[in-house]
Amino acid sequence: MSTDAPDAPVAPDDSFHLFDTTLRDGAQREGINLTVADKLTIARHLDEFGVGFIEGGWPGANPRDTEFFERARAEIDFRHAQLVAFGSTRKAGVRAADDAQVRALVDSGAPVVTLVAKSHDRHVELALRTSLEENLAMVRDTVAYLREQGRRVFVDCEHFFDGYLADAAYAKQVVAAAHEAGADVVVLCDTNGGMLPAQVQAVVRTVLADTGARVGIHAQDDTGCAVANTLAAVDAGATHVQCTANGYGERVGNANLFPVTAALQLKYGKQVVPQGALEEMTRISHAIAEVVNLVPSTHQPYVGTSAFAHKAGLHASAIKVDPDLYQHIEPELVGNTMRMLVSDMAGRASVELKGKELGYDLEGDRELVGRIVARVKEQELKGYTYEAADASFELLLRDEVHGRARRFFRLESWRTIVEQRPGGDQANEATVKLWAKGERIVATGEGNGPVNALDRALRSGLERLHPELAKLSLVDYKVRILEGGHGTDSTTRVLVSMSDGSGEWSTVGVADNIIAASWQALDDAYTYGLLRAGVEPHE
Amino acid sequence: MSTDAPDAPVAPDDSFHLFDTTLRDGAQREGINLTVADKLTIARHLDEFGVGFIEGGWPGANPRDTEFFERARAEIDFRHAQLVAFGSTRKAGVRAADDAQVRALVDSGAPVVTLVAKSHDRHVELALRTSLEENLAMVRDTVAYLREQGRRVFVDCEHFFDGYLADAAYAKQVVAAAHEAGADVVVLCDTNGGMLPAQVQAVVRTVLADTGARVGIHAQDDTGCAVANTLAAVDAGATHVQCTANGYGERVGNANLFPVTAALQLKYGKQVVPQGALEEMTRISHAIAEVVNLVPSTHQPYVGTSAFAHKAGLHASAIKVDPDLYQHIEPELVGNTMRMLVSDMAGRASVELKGKELGYDLEGDRELVGRIVARVKEQELKGYTYEAADASFELLLRDEVHGRARRFFRLESWRTIVEQRPGGDQANEATVKLWAKGERIVATGEGNGPVNALDRALRSGLERLHPELAKLSLVDYKVRILEGGHGTDSTTRVLVSMSDGSGEWSTVGVADNIIAASWQALDDAYTYGLLRAGVEPHE
Repeated sequence: MSTDAPDAPVAPDDSFHLFDTTLRDGAQREGINLTVADKLTIARHLDEFGVGFIEGGWPGANPRDTEFFERARAEIDFRHAQLVAFGSTRKAGVRAADDAQVRALVDSGAPVVTLVAKSHDRHVELALRTSLEENLAMVRDTVAYLREQGRRVFVDCEHFFDGYLADAAYAKQVVAAAHEAGADVVVLCDTNGGMLPAQVQAVVRTVLADTGARVGIHAQDDTGCAVANTLAAVDAGATHVQCTANGYGERVGNANLFPVTAALQLKYGKQVVPQGALEEMTRISHAIAEVVNLVPSTHQPYVGTSAFAHKAGLHASAIKVDPDLYQHIEPELVGNTMRMLVSDMAGRASVELKGKELGYDLEGDRELVGRIVARVKEQELKGYTYEAADASFELLLRDEVHGRARRFFRLESWRTIVEQRPGGDQANEATVKLWAKGERIVATGEGNGPVNALDRALRSGLERLHPELAKLSLVDYKVRILEGGHGTDSTTRVLVSMSDGSGEWSTVGVADNIIAASWQALDDAYTYGLLRAGVEPHE
Repeated sequence: MSTDAPDAPVAPDDSFHLFDTTLRDGAQREGINLTVADKLTIARHLDEFGVGFIEGGWPGANPRDTEFFERARAEIDFRHAQLVAFGSTRKAGVRAADDAQVRALVDSGAPVVTLVAKSHDRHVELALRTSLEENLAMVRDTVAYLREQGRRVFVDCEHFFDGYLADAAYAKQVVAAAHEAGADVVVLCDTNGGMLPAQVQAVVRTVLADTGARVGIHAQDDTGCAVANTLAAVDAGATHVQCTANGYGERVGNANLFPVTAALQLKYGKQVVPQGALEEMTRISHAIAEVVNLVPSTHQPYVGTSAFAHKAGLHASAIKVDPDLYQHIEPELVGNTMRMLVSDMAGRASVELKGKELGYDLEGDRELVGRIVARVKEQELKGYTYEAADASFELLLRDEVHGRARRFFRLESWRTIVEQRPGGDQANEATVKLWAKGERIVATGEGNGPVNALDRALRSGLERLHPELAKLSLVDYKVRILEGGHGTDSTTRVLVSMSDGSGEWSTVGVADNIIAASWQALDDAYTYGLLRAGVEPHE
């Protein structure tokens, strides 16, 4: 292992499997609920990232998954991945060929099948309610049947590690049964997620030595060690790793595909995704978060927006000397970027660096930098955050550099009315009164909510004077209640992201209520957008 | 290592150090900004949890930290922890006794000092701009001076692992210099967080063998392996672990105190916190999240609300047989609880279990359970979530059990007006028109925002008829914009938590706009609160 990637082959091959189960096991995460369209979109992202296998779901168990396999075959031209159907060994006491669930796996058309098998004696007895011998027969028969049908078979040994601790001999018999019946890989699953790396490594090593099977690893993150457990298995000789995008999964989650891939590629020097794919990792991670409708974790290793962000004053001054002394890899290798954070804790060095990032040379002017630092501290005390609102910070900086910078409009007043009428109809209306280019403007907007109505009123008031507004659109809108614990009686922070098609920027507003906070963020967002478009300010 | 805790001594002793640096290194996390009062509150929580050492900050470098040490000494009667001041070795070319920063460490009154020292040759040259020999002298002199002043000294070797890879001999000289000058522990820091467990283990083992120093570990989480790296160091012989609550820290964060403690205590059988403290872990984790004003991570190992939550239909039916087959520890050991999630993916078994948890025996009635499952699916399609809104689920269940259950009021209409007036004044007003106990009620409320005004209007309209409302208060209010990517033009989900002093419940509302969604959640929350109070429904 070294921290630099040695020379490596250009494309992954079958000797090592990067197997993704976001669409099956990842979907078990609390709060995730995927439509077929979502699953197709995620499958495209995963194929682009270059995983070898995409487990799509359990056809037959669930009409949504059956439909997914049909549509994936018809609609997606996979470049890298093979589609995998997940299912269970046959029921006790029936032939595999007569088991409807097993037949659905064949009918899915997937070239690869993952079979889940019990390998913990108590689970066989209490959950399956069959004998240990019949469970072995179920594994053998189902693997053999699927091989006859021309499928490649992987077997997931559920609860393997707990089973191994309870009865190692039986757990290994299950592995051997799967291997001898023709399974290509036998995957040892830490289903309850209680293992630590040293245990995983010892068990994988023994199973490899005693069974001769090709071994894979499936780790859950209940001890916070799923990535390390996955790598420990690889260190012991596993050549197939099961992961989920962003670590989604039941309870705490699964081994996270992205840090596992980055470690294998950058620290182990193994080519597990195609050339160039790692640089897309940050984008793909965020895109999948969008599809599942979860906010991307800002602190996710490698791909989080904070992963290469520096705020300590101590570091900021040294980073000016040599950034590589303060990051374990170049963020560009995984498609991320280094960021300097403007925050209360930061000293002058951070503000100077951030100014430079934005194109302002502040190093000569100690008094100006001091004023900016003081203003940031004062605003952050009120609840503003500039770490996530670069455009608002740049406007603050412009104000300090140019004196109060001119803007494009000046507010006189606004009002929003939201109404639930007798009978159930709703109405949302907003009126703004503004001054722009010397004119007084009164405009009204309707929308599906008060902020939407306010946004439309502002646009309709200004668009005659500033046709550039037509290009600007809101792409994200986030609300955060500060000082939790006071119910609806708290400070509200709103973050808005706006796009003009070629770039995105974020702004912040803070106020007692959500509408006033939204107004501030919208005001900054439109002002910044017009400045970007090169429009000359004129109130 | 075993998955059950063996017999262990009752209280931790000095042979193993649980060292917390939330207040110093944790505060470097993007988005965290602690006041002195925040730091005092967190210190009390950490002491209650029973860590051995609390690093409070850098006195002298920062007036807030200086004040913290003064007030902590005066105001907190620590039961378990010792307070630690963090600082740097003396400047190059001055005597330790003449270095103002070093004197401030002594003046802080903290009985223990952690000194940060450079141990990577390039950092000495490029960041400190001094010679390798002078750096060793700085370590020796500062440790010796602080020992003379009666302080216990730990030395943090910054960038140790990168330094070791670059020049192992020099890195070890720094450890030896600290050790020989009287440092009690020399802490090997993976400052850039790029290490993996196997590397950490090998380096710690060599340093221990070659220097004879007592060794500690400080791991950052940039590879997603900070918990595992910490445990790997312990496996190699380290007896001092530095962590932060909830893993807060710069970039991705630090080794998370809670899974490290749980692993040491439950998996290694080491008594690292006092008897009974582990059962408080979930509560303390969430309390600290409240203080730093971050939403507690729902998926944090051991303490997340999802950490013992089950939604897979497959598992739900087996969990009925034996819950211990499906969890790696009993959640009560860490103060958490098992939860069954009601979700679209869940089958009948989950709904039956959840009903049982709420006191409804549904097992006999297949048709009823089917209707509930169908209704949950239909609502979740619209954006409702019952996983985080138990009270709304119970109301749904009551509606299905009793037919449309009677409520306490029936809405005719509501209206909110939010206004920013010329001159900057704001006004928020809401009017509700309701029917309750046969009366038509019209009530108006003012507030600091539209939802607060609506809440007050509803209360003022009903409190004469239902004086029980006086006991109910909103304790949390969360807003989530669904279908991100559409700006202000999206569906809004509101979650409300309400308390009556003896218990808390959560409800959900979903609508095009935040106010309508808030109304639904408030409606459910008050209805549930009145039912809890034993009030007879009467519209």
